[in-house]
Amino acid sequence: MAGRHRVVIIGGGFGGLSAALKLKRVPADVTLIDRCNYHLFQPLLYQVATGALSPANIASPLREILKDHRNTKVLLAEATGIDVANRRVVLSDGSVEYDTLIISTGASHQYFGHAEWEKFAPGLKTIEDATAMRRRILLAFETAEREQDPEKRRAFLTFVIVGAGPTGVELAGALGEIANDTLRRDFRSIDPASARIILVEGTDRVLPSYPPKLSAAARRMLERLGVTVRTGVFVTGVSEHAVTLREGDRTEQIPARTILWAAGVLTSPLGKSLSEATGAPLDKSGHIIVQPDLSVPGHPEIFVIGDLANYSHQTGRPLPGVAQPAIQEGRYVAGVIRRRLLQHVPPPPFHYFDKGNLATVGRAAAVADLNWLRISGIPAWLIWIFVHLFYIMEFRNRLLILLQWGWLFITYDRSARLITGKTPFPLDL
Amino acid sequence: MAGRHRVVIIGGGFGGLSAALKLKRVPADVTLIDRCNYHLFQPLLYQVATGALSPANIASPLREILKDHRNTKVLLAEATGIDVANRRVVLSDGSVEYDTLIISTGASHQYFGHAEWEKFAPGLKTIEDATAMRRRILLAFETAEREQDPEKRRAFLTFVIVGAGPTGVELAGALGEIANDTLRRDFRSIDPASARIILVEGTDRVLPSYPPKLSAAARRMLERLGVTVRTGVFVTGVSEHAVTLREGDRTEQIPARTILWAAGVLTSPLGKSLSEATGAPLDKSGHIIVQPDLSVPGHPEIFVIGDLANYSHQTGRPLPGVAQPAIQEGRYVAGVIRRRLLQHVPPPPFHYFDKGNLATVGRAAAVADLNWLRISGIPAWLIWIFVHLFYIMEFRNRLLILLQWGWLFITYDRSARLITGKTPFPLDL
Repeated sequence: MAGRHRVVIIGGGFGGLSAALKLKRVPADVTLIDRCNYHLFQPLLYQVATGALSPANIASPLREILKDHRNTKVLLAEATGIDVANRRVVLSDGSVEYDTLIISTGASHQYFGHAEWEKFAPGLKTIEDATAMRRRILLAFETAEREQDPEKRRAFLTFVIVGAGPTGVELAGALGEIANDTLRRDFRSIDPASARIILVEGTDRVLPSYPPKLSAAARRMLERLGVTVRTGVFVTGVSEHAVTLREGDRTEQIPARTILWAAGVLTSPLGKSLSEATGAPLDKSGHIIVQPDLSVPGHPEIFVIGDLANYSHQTGRPLPGVAQPAIQEGRYVAGVIRRRLLQHVPPPPFHYFDKGNLATVGRAAAVADLNWLRISGIPAWLIWIFVHLFYIMEFRNRLLILLQWGWLFITYDRSARLITGKTPFPLDL
Repeated sequence: MAGRHRVVIIGGGFGGLSAALKLKRVPADVTLIDRCNYHLFQPLLYQVATGALSPANIASPLREILKDHRNTKVLLAEATGIDVANRRVVLSDGSVEYDTLIISTGASHQYFGHAEWEKFAPGLKTIEDATAMRRRILLAFETAEREQDPEKRRAFLTFVIVGAGPTGVELAGALGEIANDTLRRDFRSIDPASARIILVEGTDRVLPSYPPKLSAAARRMLERLGVTVRTGVFVTGVSEHAVTLREGDRTEQIPARTILWAAGVLTSPLGKSLSEATGAPLDKSGHIIVQPDLSVPGHPEIFVIGDLANYSHQTGRPLPGVAQPAIQEGRYVAGVIRRRLLQHVPPPPFHYFDKGNLATVGRAAAVADLNWLRISGIPAWLIWIFVHLFYIMEFRNRLLILLQWGWLFITYDRSARLITGKTPFPLDL
């Protein structure tokens, strides 16, 4: 159908996919562009990194999700820029024209200006990150088992997690379980429970975006799992063999072969180029400061949603970089587009409905801040399970995940603790 | 316990693992060496390559399987040679001394002397092979969707499978299902069902090791799935863009961007070095011709089992390169070692009990040769399911696989059709 309104969405994460789903019956041709052929349920990515789930359990093919959306086309492609004047998305192989554009390309890690740390301290944003982190964690134990020198062995058994937001806390908790329970009878020369797990956070508490009471509860749960929590501590150096920490005036070097990065996000490079092309303001982290209707100033045909957007109109602070704001923004923008096409009155500004925050700290332990209710422990953990199963795509994945969580709960066995990819011999990390 | 008899096993496949399991109560220190940290259930590897199962569903950590074997140590290491005189296995990082050695290093693909074909026609032996093959198959459809030139598009939608043994037949059947059913509503520019799937076999029938009646049944099932079966045809050339076939005097080039290799096995390089060190005879494919008790001539302390061994004492022909002979050989060798250590009489020569052969050809279609019973169709398929679930390690994996097979049967949805690893942009294979 030539002449139909063309909506192009860049990014198949929570924001972009929610918009695409909501555009099903809108009289427009929708194109969803992503570099991956799947939608990734990022909140459970740490469970892939720690061997509890398989990648396919938390990733659903975009084509499968959208197969009954006859007005929607999925494009496996890499967007390299936006030609605002000609309303074209530039791809590494061609281009796509749009009438309305939704940019939802998310964020990647930042290393406080030290890009060279990335090699030694991998982050967790993609499936490939998760399997690489899994390989690193498992190889650390394997290499320690082979190592004779007690000092080197100790460095192999030292895990430093940088950043105590939800991802850092969840990783630290899972590592505690792996060391204490999962691997308990697996080795003959080392005792996995002797592993040191150090969670480093620059602010004065873990989960700094949660109420202080829940932060304190999370800290206690982590310590019960054998995690050493160090708050008010900054990372000033990362190398292959050690991490350097600064606490007040004191500097300290900890020999550690596994350093995992769960701190700071940087936005996608597309944000910068969009800002240059449209004059849209950027905040200091590189997020695009959007209008009350999530469009770019002076360009009502371009919307920015999810982690790339800075929407502070509601609370004076940007919305958190989690799934809920992105989902609600995607749905809102789809509604704006529908009203425009049907020539209805424009909707009121975007309003974020904060359903609360949840984080797990291992087995039967979590914190839940539902605004009207703040709890920790088993009830919070049950809410966490329910909410995550509810939001995961595809009924089959819900069953598979539930089955594996049940198994993990009973046996401590993490089914997916595979070292895949190229294992280096002689053995090393 | 110094002075205990030391058994070293190289390879944690069906042969090596069966031996290790059977040595649990034998008064010996057992070391199992493998380059992977898991045992792989290879008969279902094609289901990972075709997105029906996840790697972790068919791979179980060796340490998990053997954690209660207190006399057994698992070593993640690469064996590079055997120092027969000093009874040491040489590793890429160190060495391990043995009193008794079991070599069970399996086989890898051979390309009829054309090692350069491997780049264009990947085989299927490891998890990494399977995820690479999955990526290749899915990218072929993605690239076709983007391709405008009808001729190039046709090449992207042409899949050639070389070799119609069980793996080739199973791959071809699964590809038929993917093209006709799984991807049916996924694309907008191409019709996946227009994909050509060509199964090429040098002998005069598919599944040449099966009775002719079952070969004919398998061929009919494949053709019903849209697979073009070409028997009596040899591959004489493989390049990035085409495969060259010879049928009698006729040579023909088929433009095809996805060529999958399921023909010919080559043994591990360790076999050759062992033969040089011990004078053990090799057959023309590089298998070690073993004694009736599976030891190497002149070296009763070295056993060779599984795909690396040529045991023809029973039928005059080598045993097939499948799981059953390897499992039975591993158990037999463990028994020989136990009798020796307990100074019992040596056992009679190894005897292979042939339980039969099974191969699936897609949905509700299989052939079963149980020697006393030869059937095809749904009954054979049910036997296939039962046997594979029975032999897979770990109860959890049985449940996970059954659930995914049930889902696949009802919906045709292959949950794990993820393109992982680095996707090349501009898009290409």
